[in-house]
Amino acid sequence: MKNILLIGAGLSSSTLIKYLLDNAKDNKWQLIVGDQSFELAQKKIEKHPFGRAIKFDAFNIEQREKEIKNADIVISMLPARLHYLIAEVCLQYNKNMVTASYVSDQIKEMDADLKAKKLLFLNEIGVDPGIDHMSAMKIIDDINNKGGKIEVFESNTGGLVAPEFDNNPWNYKFTWNPRNVVIAGQSGARFLDRAQIKYIPYNQLFRRTELLPVLDYGEFESIPNRDSLQYIDVYGLDNINTMYRGTFRRPGFASGWHVLIQLGLTDDSFKIKKSEELTYRNFINAFLPYGKDRTVEEKTCDYLNIGIGSETMQKLRWLGIFENKQIGLKNASPAQILQKLLEEKWRLSDEDLDMIVMQHQFIYTLKNKRRKIISSMIVKGDNQIHTAMSKTVGLPLAIAVKYILNGVITKIGVKLPVCKNIYQPILAELENYGIAFTEEEFELD
Amino acid sequence: MKNILLIGAGLSSSTLIKYLLDNAKDNKWQLIVGDQSFELAQKKIEKHPFGRAIKFDAFNIEQREKEIKNADIVISMLPARLHYLIAEVCLQYNKNMVTASYVSDQIKEMDADLKAKKLLFLNEIGVDPGIDHMSAMKIIDDINNKGGKIEVFESNTGGLVAPEFDNNPWNYKFTWNPRNVVIAGQSGARFLDRAQIKYIPYNQLFRRTELLPVLDYGEFESIPNRDSLQYIDVYGLDNINTMYRGTFRRPGFASGWHVLIQLGLTDDSFKIKKSEELTYRNFINAFLPYGKDRTVEEKTCDYLNIGIGSETMQKLRWLGIFENKQIGLKNASPAQILQKLLEEKWRLSDEDLDMIVMQHQFIYTLKNKRRKIISSMIVKGDNQIHTAMSKTVGLPLAIAVKYILNGVITKIGVKLPVCKNIYQPILAELENYGIAFTEEEFELD
Repeated sequence: MKNILLIGAGLSSSTLIKYLLDNAKDNKWQLIVGDQSFELAQKKIEKHPFGRAIKFDAFNIEQREKEIKNADIVISMLPARLHYLIAEVCLQYNKNMVTASYVSDQIKEMDADLKAKKLLFLNEIGVDPGIDHMSAMKIIDDINNKGGKIEVFESNTGGLVAPEFDNNPWNYKFTWNPRNVVIAGQSGARFLDRAQIKYIPYNQLFRRTELLPVLDYGEFESIPNRDSLQYIDVYGLDNINTMYRGTFRRPGFASGWHVLIQLGLTDDSFKIKKSEELTYRNFINAFLPYGKDRTVEEKTCDYLNIGIGSETMQKLRWLGIFENKQIGLKNASPAQILQKLLEEKWRLSDEDLDMIVMQHQFIYTLKNKRRKIISSMIVKGDNQIHTAMSKTVGLPLAIAVKYILNGVITKIGVKLPVCKNIYQPILAELENYGIAFTEEEFELD
Repeated sequence: MKNILLIGAGLSSSTLIKYLLDNAKDNKWQLIVGDQSFELAQKKIEKHPFGRAIKFDAFNIEQREKEIKNADIVISMLPARLHYLIAEVCLQYNKNMVTASYVSDQIKEMDADLKAKKLLFLNEIGVDPGIDHMSAMKIIDDINNKGGKIEVFESNTGGLVAPEFDNNPWNYKFTWNPRNVVIAGQSGARFLDRAQIKYIPYNQLFRRTELLPVLDYGEFESIPNRDSLQYIDVYGLDNINTMYRGTFRRPGFASGWHVLIQLGLTDDSFKIKKSEELTYRNFINAFLPYGKDRTVEEKTCDYLNIGIGSETMQKLRWLGIFENKQIGLKNASPAQILQKLLEEKWRLSDEDLDMIVMQHQFIYTLKNKRRKIISSMIVKGDNQIHTAMSKTVGLPLAIAVKYILNGVITKIGVKLPVCKNIYQPILAELENYGIAFTEEEFELD
């Protein structure tokens, strides 16, 4: 028997746990699911004979050592900033580790030590980052092998509500951690655009969008995502002219969100005193200039130069930000107050299914012909537990764990899933779960 | 003999050191000036018989302990975040301490321990914060003593170039630490405006200005400064409707600076690779969208909706931000690159004198009459050493030290100069140095 220790049993872990339990008997696995809530861990295990739930406190060093020592591999689904606590102990006790998060500098620094001990810490193996890296590298390797020269790479991913259930003016509902959505982008973005490096500060990020159609799902709006420049090296695209990674929303989302940023409602750096006593109308008014005899709505429009009947104002009204409803959240930051409001409005209802949309665009030259590849993936949720998000985050992780344990994946060190040894078996198996790309290729004049 | 230990011999310490040396003999003081540069400390002492220069390393705990143990009082002119290093040792060895910086939460927490040992840590006793607190509290106490009810308090201070030497389109030159000017305001601002709390994020800060005339010096533009709300308690103004502190610049400065913030040029959170090889034109272009066949100037205007011949564009052109001149600064953040450019353009030349402008406005009601007091101070530099900044920062500090040592100031704990025991003797003596307010009083409708 091999012991798999999974830390964190939240929403994104459902499909991950199901895969590991479904395949436990054949592979001789024992799955230990640890969470700060024992009940949550227990519920996810559902008394499965090869599963065991434990209460796990990531800040308890003794428990970390005890549980990791007994494991053959560790999956950390903790918030990204906490992976390091697990990684240290994995290194100490010679355990491989897998996460779905962006690799931190702290983890990167462990590369030499890991290699010395022949250990693998595989990061960014969820959906975005994760499936995006793997599916992009498959095409990049193909083009390179044919002798093609890649000029443009643009990749976008979005977690959205499926079109059948898309019924609000933002065309958006929360399909993952609301806090991450509210504070997204605060470090701005950087990318390479036609051989020019571009930097975008947070205050302009949601203005710098472009529209892209995906298959027959209509148009999506792309918002630049973090630091794309580092992936020039990671993907080995030294001669590229455009290197861009973005986040998909439906058209119009970004201009609405831009207004919330301009007002200051996404600020998480200070607390508002007695915030529980304010109404949302008081809250938004606190970010607007004083104006005698002018309504909060009029001031918003004047201040941000938007029309009183514009789509953006319709979005703001629909959110209830102008309503005299009490906030009821104590000593909260603007971002926390906004999140509370959005959680009421952007909640997935019981019938709603979610959707992951991913698209890569490549332009490359082969035998003096310029060509464009558009590779698109749509995944919809099966239900409210096995959501598109849970499937696309959990399955690559689970499959990676399988291939690490059975020796198919043989890499060591701090790795992203960009080499064929890692992405090939995982992408192949993902197709069995309907996680697959539609590829279109065009010849450019 | 009493030993005064002054840590930090930079620009703002010149007048402070002169005062302490000029008054050393009469008061039986020995002044020890410590700086990381021994030469700088020595130069400021000028072989004065009551002065002694030492090389001082604030990060060397042994040296901190040795020097502070021998002192009767300590003045820290270190960067604000380092005061704590000095404060800890002062508490340990029972020494009073004085700084010109905003008091930090770390220092505030030492209040009970200081009181138990009957020690005083006097903070915010420079110009702004410092003279502003003292001169405002004098008027507030006067109004309260007469039985008046204060409704509005607005206070502004600016460090500027004197009008005779004001010859650039920004009407601004650096008269203190350029880095602090470049990154000013990044935490936004908060104040009370006609009974409504207002929060302004950084991205809107330099739009939210108002114009105020000061004596016969023309108009100044007020930019909201940090957290004014905390001074409602500090000044004891529980029933106030408007509590506002701002920074003065000349009109038009803020709209120019707002453009630099919108572009992202004040961002200090990341480094630009190979920044030394770029020109300023490359630099600004990196923050603008791609645009075929459009100049950097055209893109700037379109992007930020400003006219090509506008005053803001004239300001930007004058800075040289569109020039093909190499930056020559390695691995620098946008804010560092902008600072380098500004240091060339906004340098005080050898003949230039600086100026401090301060103004308080009060509206209060006394015997059913509403009244307005405008209290204004203009201080100009004597020369390039005893600048207005050096005088207005250094003299209140120096005078405070005198009155603490001779027992006139008797307060203990962590204090700001808002009580009569502290501000009265200091304001009285400042008048001898031409640091005085002109008070105008008006009856309102």
